[in-house]
Amino acid sequence: MAASWLNIPRDSPFSLANIPFGIISTKASPSPVPAVAIGEHALNLSAFAASGGFSQLPSIQQHLDVFNKPTLNAFAALGRPTHRVVREYIQAVFQADTPYPQVLKDNAAAQKESLVPRSEVTNHVPMQIGDYTDFYAGLNHAYNVGVLFRGPDNALQPNYKHLPVGYHGRASSVVPSGTPIRRPNGQILANPAADPKVPTFSPCKRLDIELELAAFVSRPNNLGEPVPIDEAEDHIFGLVLMNDWSARDIQAWEYIPLGPFNAKNFATTITPWVVLIDALEPFRAPGLEPGDRESLLPYLREKRAANAYDIRLEFELKNAGGQSTLISKTNATNLLFSFPQMLAHHTITGCNMNPGDLLGSGTISGTEPKTQGSLLEQTNGGKQPIKLADGSERIFLQDGDEVTLRGICGEEGSYVGFGDCVGTILPAINIA
Amino acid sequence: MAASWLNIPRDSPFSLANIPFGIISTKASPSPVPAVAIGEHALNLSAFAASGGFSQLPSIQQHLDVFNKPTLNAFAALGRPTHRVVREYIQAVFQADTPYPQVLKDNAAAQKESLVPRSEVTNHVPMQIGDYTDFYAGLNHAYNVGVLFRGPDNALQPNYKHLPVGYHGRASSVVPSGTPIRRPNGQILANPAADPKVPTFSPCKRLDIELELAAFVSRPNNLGEPVPIDEAEDHIFGLVLMNDWSARDIQAWEYIPLGPFNAKNFATTITPWVVLIDALEPFRAPGLEPGDRESLLPYLREKRAANAYDIRLEFELKNAGGQSTLISKTNATNLLFSFPQMLAHHTITGCNMNPGDLLGSGTISGTEPKTQGSLLEQTNGGKQPIKLADGSERIFLQDGDEVTLRGICGEEGSYVGFGDCVGTILPAINIA
Repeated sequence: MAASWLNIPRDSPFSLANIPFGIISTKASPSPVPAVAIGEHALNLSAFAASGGFSQLPSIQQHLDVFNKPTLNAFAALGRPTHRVVREYIQAVFQADTPYPQVLKDNAAAQKESLVPRSEVTNHVPMQIGDYTDFYAGLNHAYNVGVLFRGPDNALQPNYKHLPVGYHGRASSVVPSGTPIRRPNGQILANPAADPKVPTFSPCKRLDIELELAAFVSRPNNLGEPVPIDEAEDHIFGLVLMNDWSARDIQAWEYIPLGPFNAKNFATTITPWVVLIDALEPFRAPGLEPGDRESLLPYLREKRAANAYDIRLEFELKNAGGQSTLISKTNATNLLFSFPQMLAHHTITGCNMNPGDLLGSGTISGTEPKTQGSLLEQTNGGKQPIKLADGSERIFLQDGDEVTLRGICGEEGSYVGFGDCVGTILPAINIA
Repeated sequence: MAASWLNIPRDSPFSLANIPFGIISTKASPSPVPAVAIGEHALNLSAFAASGGFSQLPSIQQHLDVFNKPTLNAFAALGRPTHRVVREYIQAVFQADTPYPQVLKDNAAAQKESLVPRSEVTNHVPMQIGDYTDFYAGLNHAYNVGVLFRGPDNALQPNYKHLPVGYHGRASSVVPSGTPIRRPNGQILANPAADPKVPTFSPCKRLDIELELAAFVSRPNNLGEPVPIDEAEDHIFGLVLMNDWSARDIQAWEYIPLGPFNAKNFATTITPWVVLIDALEPFRAPGLEPGDRESLLPYLREKRAANAYDIRLEFELKNAGGQSTLISKTNATNLLFSFPQMLAHHTITGCNMNPGDLLGSGTISGTEPKTQGSLLEQTNGGKQPIKLADGSERIFLQDGDEVTLRGICGEEGSYVGFGDCVGTILPAINIA
């Protein structure tokens, strides 16, 4: 990657190779507008467009209104070829030897208008999410959880390797990184062995995290018209990291027979910068394979075997005292199905997708100790506490705990990363 | 109810006692706008407001812009006291002895501008649906389905009477009555007894209906702030009928462990006229009760025992030849939990609701033959075909079948009804 005239720290997840899109506001400019992240800065695309920043990109001229919207939905709906030229143009603008120095590099007024330190920026959920679907494509996670509930012989359900198992999630409570997470109240079984089973009203006692990737949809499809597998990738705008907070005790009581509901609907945290699918292209890598790939039905068969991404993932826990402990390191190659496969499956019935729809991957876990994407797995179902750096122990999250997910591709100096996905646990409200 | 100066057929579901709200367009006026249904007419509220129709209702003057929106979200967000005065004002405008004859009764120009025959009207989904949740509060349905899958001794899960079981549904594919329904393709088990289980790609062969009520949310609540049970009813705008089309064979294969997904995401049909919660107030009636009501946790306890509505429900099937057969008659009192209870449960974790969110009741069934709200139950799991009027038989829906749900309260001349909820089955698309 070329060097930039802007000072971009070598360890920044937002190198010139990345150029992720988001929605920001500042004190001086409180209306949310589109932006890209670059190093320690955000480029306000509304201000950049107003200053003539896109003057050297003729093909975008008729669409400049998309940079005055409070979400990225309109930009995403322009389609992948447009995302590509806009991203490449912005890369060219920031290159040390930019062909367009007058646009920003040598334009102090434009820099002042549009280039903002990210420390002064408030990030927002980048897209208006019409529907949010969470899949369960992390094979090792599904296996680990299956072992906990049903033993190793029946860990995976018969359908698991034939289709990307998924369910509809709650869109309204998707929040950007940094939003505090209120511990939910709900019905739990104080004594699961009792008969008859009688629930207790309580703050969740088994509050967990789930380390996931998630994809935003760009192109819509009409109701009744499935997206073919070979076109599905072009319907994906980009990816974010996602923490699918989970109340395990509420889930255990409520989820039969219709799946998780209140156990998940109180909050889902995402990173606010959408890493475009093109920025991830150099990091394609083989994912996991079903044992008998040939048995995969044709509507799910991809041409490329390398249908996952080599994204190094981790999560850490900082206790209320401020000490951080790295809990887990894993990789996004631990997925059995790709986002194009998820989209092809989701729409095979004719289900219509809209720009801004969000697809979660499911929890991503490795097979070794300290590679799992949830505390449920890390603690073997709550039986083996984790030692924190300060000597204390955790099974599930305590009030005041701060959880950070991270994901990054590539090498120092040209990282393509997602930034931090952070949430701190607030105590449950007191219900009289 | 007073008589109207407008000719309202005595058998109309939209008597002067009703005044349901919807979103309409016409050939002459193609932009969707709010309206109310009255007899054979729709009152275009945008045109009505523009002609000074609301001049005699001072309290609404500052909010007249809500009648120029393409959805009812803004009107709903004004809150129940405003819905009440607007509905009562419109009732007064249409009364034979209206105190405001100049507004419409004696105003030929205003009538011409705003009063449209419903036969010339296109109805739209009345609200922008942020999230759609489907509950499972039809006790007899849950029992009947439980018997089919697990036998009578374990028909209901242990959690069933303690909380309104629900799951997140697909908002994008909620369509208004009259929209054709494309039979979905998907993975089914041609031979469920085979081991290992290997799915086949096929058009759904067990396409079913589910007769439900659904509530639209009006007032929002903030993330982290539950809606107390005693305030929950004031967060509900009104009710519609809903057909939760279900692909039973796709569902049987996919639904473990995360619930129904593709089996439901291809379409959900609703009636386009929202019957306000105040219009239903005279029809309150006791619903079903858990065996041990005292054990219900306090956050779900309502002050009023009569927490259901006496709504007479039915569905009929018209085959491609055009002959109709009444399949089922039941009543909305067959619900174990009320919409306020569903809302209180949904938000007890702090989940935030927005205006336009849709809550389905779950399938409503009685206990006697021909009172069930699905074909799965009517046919005893597909084992006992239904005889149609033309002598043919049905287990599940065939291409060309037209299904109509109806729901009505009260007596002829003052019906409060929902109108028809109709969908016709189109053949599956051919996937190469």
